[in-house]
Amino acid sequence: MRPCIVLSRPSHPGNIGAAARAMKTMGFTDLRLVAPKAFPAAEAVAMASGAADVLDAARVYDTLEAALADVVHAVGFSARSRDLSHPVRSLRDAAPDLLARAEAGIVALVFGNETFGLSNEELARCQGFVNIPSNPAYGSLNLAAAVQVACYELATSGGDFALPPQPEHEPATLDEIEAMHQHFERAMTASGFLDPHQPKRLMERVRRLFARAGLERSEVQFLRGMLAAFEKPKRRE
Amino acid sequence: MRPCIVLSRPSHPGNIGAAARAMKTMGFTDLRLVAPKAFPAAEAVAMASGAADVLDAARVYDTLEAALADVVHAVGFSARSRDLSHPVRSLRDAAPDLLARAEAGIVALVFGNETFGLSNEELARCQGFVNIPSNPAYGSLNLAAAVQVACYELATSGGDFALPPQPEHEPATLDEIEAMHQHFERAMTASGFLDPHQPKRLMERVRRLFARAGLERSEVQFLRGMLAAFEKPKRRE
Repeated sequence: MRPCIVLSRPSHPGNIGAAARAMKTMGFTDLRLVAPKAFPAAEAVAMASGAADVLDAARVYDTLEAALADVVHAVGFSARSRDLSHPVRSLRDAAPDLLARAEAGIVALVFGNETFGLSNEELARCQGFVNIPSNPAYGSLNLAAAVQVACYELATSGGDFALPPQPEHEPATLDEIEAMHQHFERAMTASGFLDPHQPKRLMERVRRLFARAGLERSEVQFLRGMLAAFEKPKRRE
Repeated sequence: MRPCIVLSRPSHPGNIGAAARAMKTMGFTDLRLVAPKAFPAAEAVAMASGAADVLDAARVYDTLEAALADVVHAVGFSARSRDLSHPVRSLRDAAPDLLARAEAGIVALVFGNETFGLSNEELARCQGFVNIPSNPAYGSLNLAAAVQVACYELATSGGDFALPPQPEHEPATLDEIEAMHQHFERAMTASGFLDPHQPKRLMERVRRLFARAGLERSEVQFLRGMLAAFEKPKRRE
């Protein structure tokens, strides 16, 4: 089950909409709002872009306790560490555990107010704390940006989404590549660029460069066509 | 060297500011703008929040070619795959390679226009393509959100930032925990809750629960204090 995203006391409706969009891009749909300052709001809809469905389905609660009633494990996202708290884990380290817990019930990722973060009372409702490691000189992620990073990390750690279809390229075989290397050697020798008596490891450099590039069959063909064209004038001389 | 972030033909100045903020939270400072529709702009400053320095230092270019002149490796962020292109790698898979290349020179992360993405001409200027795996039904990350995720992934893969200082908790030793378990057994037996003739694996459950919790020394002390208080009335009977 996908974790739910809980925004506690968000001040700016635009952030609610942007958070909905961030969630949907990573396949999250369960958005819960605790005492939002303004919601519903046109600004939220505008920022949600194509994620209006997530916004429409968002549930509003008076208290964090109510928002977490059916949740089995809640983690608070916090930039600070607190004396009385559980230890804080980095988002990346916490991800596998959160995904495992999400197999058994609803996990909540809880984000506090844009300015004040999570209060001590709100943190006390959480079973774990997660930090997004950031620049100590300026660690202030925008609320929706933090939601985006959290959803990205969980989706990526869970291997949820495949890459888009890859272009198909047929790799060259090693005998095709070897024949091309010999073609290079002949053409460079005929042109005078390669002196067989002082080869200066030129062929080694050619082999190294093309090995690194990882040649495709069509590339071998065009390179040999190019070499053949270079050879022609030399033969006419 | 930290990679630079290149925004090609961004339409919305707010996104430029939000991208600057996203960069700074992850320690990135080199922002390059190719033909922005509106820049400088008050909306960019507003969205940059505490990252006005990154915005102020941003350089504006007429062409992507000019923006990449001193760059040794440029990767284009693209949601689509193209026929003629290099293979696309996921951001997470690409991160170690990008960090290695950034040791040798300036690496560029290139992001296209909010609506159209990177054009074929722009993609042809890149040496690699990176995809942020996302919901196939709605993969439309906001521009600044994509920059945030990219910078987060590179900073996290590089282990750039430590967690905030952790609260210090002294773990209980195993003999302290064993003494507590025996205290539980005595108190539960005295109360009648544990029947020594039908123990029902109660002590096994107690041990399992506390093993999972990972007890601190102060917690063992308060639990034993609680047990002692529970024992008192029973002794008076």
